[in-house]
Amino acid sequence: MAKQVKQPFVKNAAGRSVPTVVNGAPVIPFKGINKHRPEHSAATPPIRSNVDYPADGNKVVKNLKEALKKAGLKNGMTISTHHHLRNGDMVTNLLFDTIKSMGVKGIRWFPSASFPCHDYLIKYLEDGTIHHIEGSMNGPLGRFATEGKMKGTGVLRSHGGRYRAIQDGDVKIDIAVIAAPTADPFGNANGVTGKSACGPLGFALGDSEYADRVIVVTDNLVPFPCVPWHIQGNNIDFVVTVDSLGDPSKIVSGTTQVTKSPDRILIAEYIARFVEEAGIMKNGFSFQAGAGGINLAFLQLLKEKMKEKGVKARFVRGGSTKYLTEMLEEGLTDYILDGQAFDTDGVRSLRENPHHVSTSPFTSYNFHGKGNFASMIDAVVLGATEVDLNFNANVVTHSDGYLLHGIGGWQDCLAGRCVILAIPSFRDRVPIIVDRVTTLCAPGEMIDVVVTERGIAINPLRKDLIKNMSHSTLPLRTIADIQNEVEEICGGKPEPPAVSQKDVIAIVEWVDGTILDAVFAVPGNNNGVK
Amino acid sequence: MAKQVKQPFVKNAAGRSVPTVVNGAPVIPFKGINKHRPEHSAATPPIRSNVDYPADGNKVVKNLKEALKKAGLKNGMTISTHHHLRNGDMVTNLLFDTIKSMGVKGIRWFPSASFPCHDYLIKYLEDGTIHHIEGSMNGPLGRFATEGKMKGTGVLRSHGGRYRAIQDGDVKIDIAVIAAPTADPFGNANGVTGKSACGPLGFALGDSEYADRVIVVTDNLVPFPCVPWHIQGNNIDFVVTVDSLGDPSKIVSGTTQVTKSPDRILIAEYIARFVEEAGIMKNGFSFQAGAGGINLAFLQLLKEKMKEKGVKARFVRGGSTKYLTEMLEEGLTDYILDGQAFDTDGVRSLRENPHHVSTSPFTSYNFHGKGNFASMIDAVVLGATEVDLNFNANVVTHSDGYLLHGIGGWQDCLAGRCVILAIPSFRDRVPIIVDRVTTLCAPGEMIDVVVTERGIAINPLRKDLIKNMSHSTLPLRTIADIQNEVEEICGGKPEPPAVSQKDVIAIVEWVDGTILDAVFAVPGNNNGVK
Repeated sequence: MAKQVKQPFVKNAAGRSVPTVVNGAPVIPFKGINKHRPEHSAATPPIRSNVDYPADGNKVVKNLKEALKKAGLKNGMTISTHHHLRNGDMVTNLLFDTIKSMGVKGIRWFPSASFPCHDYLIKYLEDGTIHHIEGSMNGPLGRFATEGKMKGTGVLRSHGGRYRAIQDGDVKIDIAVIAAPTADPFGNANGVTGKSACGPLGFALGDSEYADRVIVVTDNLVPFPCVPWHIQGNNIDFVVTVDSLGDPSKIVSGTTQVTKSPDRILIAEYIARFVEEAGIMKNGFSFQAGAGGINLAFLQLLKEKMKEKGVKARFVRGGSTKYLTEMLEEGLTDYILDGQAFDTDGVRSLRENPHHVSTSPFTSYNFHGKGNFASMIDAVVLGATEVDLNFNANVVTHSDGYLLHGIGGWQDCLAGRCVILAIPSFRDRVPIIVDRVTTLCAPGEMIDVVVTERGIAINPLRKDLIKNMSHSTLPLRTIADIQNEVEEICGGKPEPPAVSQKDVIAIVEWVDGTILDAVFAVPGNNNGVK
Repeated sequence: MAKQVKQPFVKNAAGRSVPTVVNGAPVIPFKGINKHRPEHSAATPPIRSNVDYPADGNKVVKNLKEALKKAGLKNGMTISTHHHLRNGDMVTNLLFDTIKSMGVKGIRWFPSASFPCHDYLIKYLEDGTIHHIEGSMNGPLGRFATEGKMKGTGVLRSHGGRYRAIQDGDVKIDIAVIAAPTADPFGNANGVTGKSACGPLGFALGDSEYADRVIVVTDNLVPFPCVPWHIQGNNIDFVVTVDSLGDPSKIVSGTTQVTKSPDRILIAEYIARFVEEAGIMKNGFSFQAGAGGINLAFLQLLKEKMKEKGVKARFVRGGSTKYLTEMLEEGLTDYILDGQAFDTDGVRSLRENPHHVSTSPFTSYNFHGKGNFASMIDAVVLGATEVDLNFNANVVTHSDGYLLHGIGGWQDCLAGRCVILAIPSFRDRVPIIVDRVTTLCAPGEMIDVVVTERGIAINPLRKDLIKNMSHSTLPLRTIADIQNEVEEICGGKPEPPAVSQKDVIAIVEWVDGTILDAVFAVPGNNNGVK
């Protein structure tokens, strides 16, 4: 430890200065892509026995407080939750109200992601009920952390990285709380039926397998067996019923919206043409595109091209929306492999169509497995907040230093065969092509193409793509060239964020668990930088 | 160890004399039902990394020899296989031919079960390629072992006990070989499609999760993704293709046959009436009945009663047959929870009907989990080779001492709410109600009812059932009374088996991993008792 006090920061293989100790424990700096190999064994949950569980399979207890008490809740424990209910989640707020009412303090909260609805929990971060958050902080909680107000250091992991951390034993979860739109008294659960139906429950899989105690909370209790059992009752300790898991209209959209911005539609067109012209769009191919406005526009355009050319995909990767389910239903793909459903069509299709398959971060993204399917996807379209001239990219902070987004599956998807960043060239007159990204989330070698409304830059490492596109009429440019044009429009480079390079408020892990970068506090408008 | 040499046998809580050391390792004698609690953590497989697996997901290697070589096969390893292909399996014989050709010796073979088709492997037991078998020995291999010809000691576990042993780390599998009727190059696999379709692949689940290296062997390779992925490619190291996994006509029956024996039909009638009159057959109930002739007759009779009374089951437990699938299709049950499909109707239904659910020994039977659904089944109909006056039962040896049957899910199912043994009162003029069972597989307190063609005996411990049946016109008798009648018919008690009480050829584990009984060598007609 003495050594660590003298050397609190090291420069890692990506050239970023990162701490060597986080929340009191030593961490491993990033060593380069595919350079770190795990050397220990997987986590070892205690062996349970049927002797200690009810023979009739009925694990229902009175309420959440009772379940937490039986689970042995105490100060300093690690409690996990999941973002399947997105911004409609009411269970997590209830959970921390309950923990507070029990007088328990210093919780490490380990969500798969937090959303704006969780700004309710700021009071518990302030009063010490929650010590710190390890998980995506979308919006208000990220702002709170950036201002240096969180007691511990945030740890940002991708969805796959989170599964990996659980499996590898980096994070030992004491109590997992899984909000389930349908469950039976034994604890089998799914998200495809019930008034709070949200789609897959895969983000909770690792928690259910490895956590010491697991509580399922449902507003739709059905007799055993709850089928499909995406979460298996054999891993569950207690079941709690509540009147409502949350606000259905915020759990899934009634419908997802294609962008109406001409610039963004242009980006979508460029990507669709690129995927076709680069030879990626061919029979049996696969692609991933999320639910953002550009992505949905891209899907519509790609769909037309596929129909025109008679091309059928082998599989498409959700988050699912009606745009993907239409492709499945029209025979343009054999399968949807779905991590989360973003609209009611996605949920319905997952429930009804056996070719719409629920996946988990284990099947899709775990880097410490025997492979995963992220590396088999032919084209992946992602967003970013910043990218630099070496294609290094940022997805968590803005150029003013504020941490406002989670990593999600973004880092995991970088394993795809052609990774395309779809980004407007500036936002609020701030250029997104920068000299140095505020926070490094993707080493440049993982990004293949940057598509802006002002042109397309192919990573010089991808000589094959450059060759394939040599006769294209698309506006192919160097990234420096696009940067220059945008800086002229915006009146120069973005202001470097006024961050303290000492006060680490969060770290960004790479998919292998090493530390890729640190996020620093932004002083000013700031009540309590450490 | 010194102590163990001086005391090689102890009397366990069931009063059976069992060894304290098996195959060189200490074992725990049976302590009584629900008395043993595991104290260590689960097995810890090494953490793998995507770095070491092909990014394109293609794990296909040239042949089985290549896969075994890459998997690091060496002398003394533990190799697992599975009985999904039943008596049609040709993969296991090919596997050991390959191991023999590589000059590797002393394998601990860990099958989920072996079948008569595996008598081919006797030569490898004789020449030292296989050291011993831990797993069910149906037929010839059991005979071989009983005659004292196997080098090591057999270990007999139930299906759930096998999963438990893997999970708990009692058995570390070096290489698992999974025969899969359909698979993709990544290793995702199922048994519901392909020319060798067999139904669920659940017996291989634990092996895929915990084995050091896992090889999938298929005769139907499809492009990624193979859906459903009952076995997940993320757990698979290598994929091998062969022309044929085996003989489809012996993998599943074209159709399963109801008994034509009047005695057995009578037993089936008694059970159906018992289930109705004891108040078990009511809306939302559940039951399990396998594919034996009595069971199928029982199913037909129960089905008529259910229709007559307008009763619908919540779930029925397979092994599935056309009799179960008809019940599902006619709306007499909400679900089939299926561990194995015994005929082509079972396979078809599992493939096509989302209410026909594939299960594994983890969901169904694992005693070291947070419960399993075996204890939620209202009525379970099982066979047995012997039962004594205290309802202790045997399912592996005959009264002549020969080990000819595996335990299967039999012990696991004893957790059911009403466990009914359906047994003809004698076989080949040998009474099956005995003073002392040759091998103890079920402590008497786990057996609720014995149904023979000469009458029904309720375990005196089940005062509730006795009360419920107090007005029944069924021939309710004491078990001693039935025994007396049968002994008069057969001319006395069966000869006690001429076994050596010293030469242990196999042990029988209880579901918690403790040692319930030992199986002893039968001298005579015997070339090599140790």
